[in-house]
Amino acid sequence: MRPVDIIHKKRNGGINTKEEIEFMVNGYVDGSIPDYQISAWLMAIYFNGMNKEERYYLTMTMRNSGDIIDLSGIEGIKIDKHSTGGVGDKTTLAVGPLVASAGLKVSKLSGRGLGHTGGTIDKLESIPGFKTAISKDEFFKIANEVGMVVAGQTGNIAPADKKLYALRDVTDTVDEISLISASIMSKKLAVNSDGIVLDVKTGSGAFMKNLDDAVALAKSMVEIAELNNRKIVAVVTNMDQPLGEMVGNSLEVWEAIETLKGNGPEDFTELCLELAASMIDLAGIYEYKEARKILEENIKNGKALEIMRKWIKAQGGDERVVDNPEEILPISKNIVEFKAEKSGYVSHIDAEKVGIASMVLGAGRKKKEDEIDYSVGIKVMKKLGAKVEKGDTIALLYVSDKSNVEESLELMKEAYEITDNPPTEHKMKLIYEKISGGK
Amino acid sequence: MRPVDIIHKKRNGGINTKEEIEFMVNGYVDGSIPDYQISAWLMAIYFNGMNKEERYYLTMTMRNSGDIIDLSGIEGIKIDKHSTGGVGDKTTLAVGPLVASAGLKVSKLSGRGLGHTGGTIDKLESIPGFKTAISKDEFFKIANEVGMVVAGQTGNIAPADKKLYALRDVTDTVDEISLISASIMSKKLAVNSDGIVLDVKTGSGAFMKNLDDAVALAKSMVEIAELNNRKIVAVVTNMDQPLGEMVGNSLEVWEAIETLKGNGPEDFTELCLELAASMIDLAGIYEYKEARKILEENIKNGKALEIMRKWIKAQGGDERVVDNPEEILPISKNIVEFKAEKSGYVSHIDAEKVGIASMVLGAGRKKKEDEIDYSVGIKVMKKLGAKVEKGDTIALLYVSDKSNVEESLELMKEAYEITDNPPTEHKMKLIYEKISGGK
Repeated sequence: MRPVDIIHKKRNGGINTKEEIEFMVNGYVDGSIPDYQISAWLMAIYFNGMNKEERYYLTMTMRNSGDIIDLSGIEGIKIDKHSTGGVGDKTTLAVGPLVASAGLKVSKLSGRGLGHTGGTIDKLESIPGFKTAISKDEFFKIANEVGMVVAGQTGNIAPADKKLYALRDVTDTVDEISLISASIMSKKLAVNSDGIVLDVKTGSGAFMKNLDDAVALAKSMVEIAELNNRKIVAVVTNMDQPLGEMVGNSLEVWEAIETLKGNGPEDFTELCLELAASMIDLAGIYEYKEARKILEENIKNGKALEIMRKWIKAQGGDERVVDNPEEILPISKNIVEFKAEKSGYVSHIDAEKVGIASMVLGAGRKKKEDEIDYSVGIKVMKKLGAKVEKGDTIALLYVSDKSNVEESLELMKEAYEITDNPPTEHKMKLIYEKISGGK
Repeated sequence: MRPVDIIHKKRNGGINTKEEIEFMVNGYVDGSIPDYQISAWLMAIYFNGMNKEERYYLTMTMRNSGDIIDLSGIEGIKIDKHSTGGVGDKTTLAVGPLVASAGLKVSKLSGRGLGHTGGTIDKLESIPGFKTAISKDEFFKIANEVGMVVAGQTGNIAPADKKLYALRDVTDTVDEISLISASIMSKKLAVNSDGIVLDVKTGSGAFMKNLDDAVALAKSMVEIAELNNRKIVAVVTNMDQPLGEMVGNSLEVWEAIETLKGNGPEDFTELCLELAASMIDLAGIYEYKEARKILEENIKNGKALEIMRKWIKAQGGDERVVDNPEEILPISKNIVEFKAEKSGYVSHIDAEKVGIASMVLGAGRKKKEDEIDYSVGIKVMKKLGAKVEKGDTIALLYVSDKSNVEESLELMKEAYEITDNPPTEHKMKLIYEKISGGK
């Protein structure tokens, strides 16, 4: 096999075989095929795409390049959850205790954040004492005893994807459905779960800016999982505004706790119930409708909150946080208001800009080496469709280093559009589509 | 400027600026931009093309990366001639003396051949004593005194093209009009001529297999020359069969001599007159029709042949070759006939295969290091449209090493199609189109 012939086939609209895809990816990883041939191949894929079998082979080749995470040390059915990433997306923090309250064990390996979307690990580390670097034995023990555990991702998951992503990043071959779905699924399928619930975000704060692309991505990932005989549900959800109200590490933990107390924002609560019920359903514990009823009850009766308490304690965190989050969590007392400059309806929010405004305050990392300030962030008071008067408070900035405030406020100003007419219902819809597979 | 942004622009169908193209090409040459970004950019160009300004900037950036050949040491107007390459293409050998006979000085820098199309330098070196490695002073002196000179290309012409071509070759980004035309023109515009006549070949023995692609390439090259204020004529000609009858080094010199004596094959004679008259016309010496008349006379009255004699002598060659080519040239006496296996019409000739059949006999190089056997080659007795009976001789193989004969005959068998009906007139047409510019 010659790389140039494989490129030629793809360039001319042909279909690469399993062997050809393995030859290219493995050859790139072991250094026998130079990066300039891989980048030409990637660009040809950008233009001509891949069919579902090619996507599957690409996924599996990248998956098999690294460690496979064996969860057999945890009893029962294992359902993984993954979000493609959004602003204010703290769903894992609330969904985990929720599904555990209905009898499904949740074990998650998460990463740190880079850019405007924070990582689950960063959020959890804002809880005093919380440890995410735990041994394999501890990980399984907590999962079995508490029903919920989250650890920082170690190990060597899909190194081929890492190497290919680095190349895609500098050759403008990132935003192509085949390559995106194979990249995500190579890491998801490296965890030996029984099923996967995907939250595919779309909108101004998501990687997929428009709904059609998000649905295509969701379908592609469902197809890949099906070819792997993995049960899967992909939920395409709104990221045209921050999820819930809180953006920033301690603030998001606070909101997750309030949500488990029944005091969460409507959109965030609804999304958590949707994802949790889908996971319970996928696990075969209860049907979706029954699952939702039980989950809602477990918020009301405090069961879900109790699991969160035990979980935090088990990972070394100060469990009093569930009773007094505002006191236990590091939350800045320095609050700057962002006010409406005119009257009207909030008709558009550039959620990515809100995320960057929060990052600028110190809640996220511009570079890998940056330190995070857990105490800062943004509370969104007015969401899409809100009617505001000039001078109304739109958002609160929780500030630590005052030198960043001006830049952050400027970004908020750019992020918000206030017009005479409210946005469409479609723009405010929370859940757009739900795609199942592999059952 | 960042390479990834320039790739992005092209990938999304945008137009790269002069500065961006210079940044990419110069950065590649000086090593500041890695090959994997250039190959992604080339593949994006493959899919989205370049407009004529981009092609011009790419051409000029590559041209300016190396030496510029200054012909001001030669008196009068300088018209360059270039063929995109074909089988049996010995036009330079006859066109040179022809145009010189009408008062236009011809000075050419030529290369050696690789693959199935031989180089002019190789053909000339089959003449005993002929030297192609001559000094600049000699080169100008012979041009001025004889009117005709051909030397081997030295110097560092368009090194950026060389580097890019090597990358295109292994990343399947060769066959794109923008890149092909810029590559050819970067070398043509590096010679400071007053005008250029291009012979753009199309058909089974040419790089451009179909007419539309050849016309597009011709138009693109004319546009690039025009933007450089260079006078140009591109003639799109038939390469669906070998040009003339002879393929192979000594054999082609012999045919060129016979043509200047008025005994050449019809197609080759006609193409030489066409190209020579176009050059004379472009130089402004005579109008095309007048030029043709004079050139035809100069064949009849022996003027053109006399210039060939003087030229060969001036470059150290045995000038008696023009009187007794068959005796002076090294031509094998070992002749193998290739015969028709059935009766009918020659309806298709894969000219490239005929070229390879000749190369296999020793007339061309498979690898750069290969030595050429000047004495071997193929004489095509039956061309497109010929009616043949089973057993008729279709071609003569001039053989040296007998171990190659079988492979060569097999290729000839594959190259020829004999059917009940003759080919279309279009397939046998010599000159398809003539595109002028810059006048």
